[in-house]
Amino acid sequence: MTTTATITKQFISSEQLLEHWQGHRNLTRRVIEAFPEKELFEFSIGGMRPFAKLAVELISIGGPALKGIVNKHEEAFNEEAFNPKTKEEILKKWDEETQVINQYFNEISEERFQETFNLFGQYEFPVYQNILYFVDNEVHHRGQGYTYLRALGIEPPFFWERF
Amino acid sequence: MTTTATITKQFISSEQLLEHWQGHRNLTRRVIEAFPEKELFEFSIGGMRPFAKLAVELISIGGPALKGIVNKHEEAFNEEAFNPKTKEEILKKWDEETQVINQYFNEISEERFQETFNLFGQYEFPVYQNILYFVDNEVHHRGQGYTYLRALGIEPPFFWERF
Repeated sequence: MTTTATITKQFISSEQLLEHWQGHRNLTRRVIEAFPEKELFEFSIGGMRPFAKLAVELISIGGPALKGIVNKHEEAFNEEAFNPKTKEEILKKWDEETQVINQYFNEISEERFQETFNLFGQYEFPVYQNILYFVDNEVHHRGQGYTYLRALGIEPPFFWERF
Repeated sequence: MTTTATITKQFISSEQLLEHWQGHRNLTRRVIEAFPEKELFEFSIGGMRPFAKLAVELISIGGPALKGIVNKHEEAFNEEAFNPKTKEEILKKWDEETQVINQYFNEISEERFQETFNLFGQYEFPVYQNILYFVDNEVHHRGQGYTYLRALGIEPPFFWERF
């Protein structure tokens, strides 16, 4: 499997993917910042979760998932461990996870990206697909966050500004 | 530049990226389908565009951008050329562009992904960054579409179902 994948055309290197992901994480951080404190924890449309809950989901995926991949342990997904009460707490944890993601991502080998792993004991896919899913899930929920901000009459950050 | 990039760890091959993108396009197609005809063209939150307009934007990027990259022409972005009046027209064009994207994407070489190109005469970035932007932009606007559907009381398609 690994051989087949690596003899084909490379689209991007792992360094480029990490930079891409961290660029998205910078933008998501700006979206968290753009919410007024109260609305971050309470505002919702159509019965969906407030943006603080979505931010906690993202924080509970990135770093913990990479740790699981690197250490090959399949602990269940857990978003109950972190219960922030303020925007500041969320941003602080966000920045801590930036370092965790950089560290663990760089420990994944080229071969490993192509190997199947049962992430969180539940999502059995090639590692690269799981990682792309983390990024997509973040962009998806952030699109929801942009809509919340617009509904609140707040101008969201520019989508293309990442660093 | 090319050499530096290709001696580093591969994250994904071009075939894997294309499959990933087309999986997202399948999901976006389901989101278009999920809108009632009238709301597809008219429903909006916070002054943002209705989902039909967003779908036209996506249709005006993917295929035309890849043609520009392959043929190295820098014609300006144009979303005025396609003015659908029905959901059916949008879905038909969507499916035609699926083939255009497959054809042109496969004509881009590994070296080319790393080369800078002035897309639409305006966005001067490495080709791989422009292509990731197309996917991200789609996931972003689709997240907005999910929020519209929830606000309309309509259950959106599963985020993880792509094929």
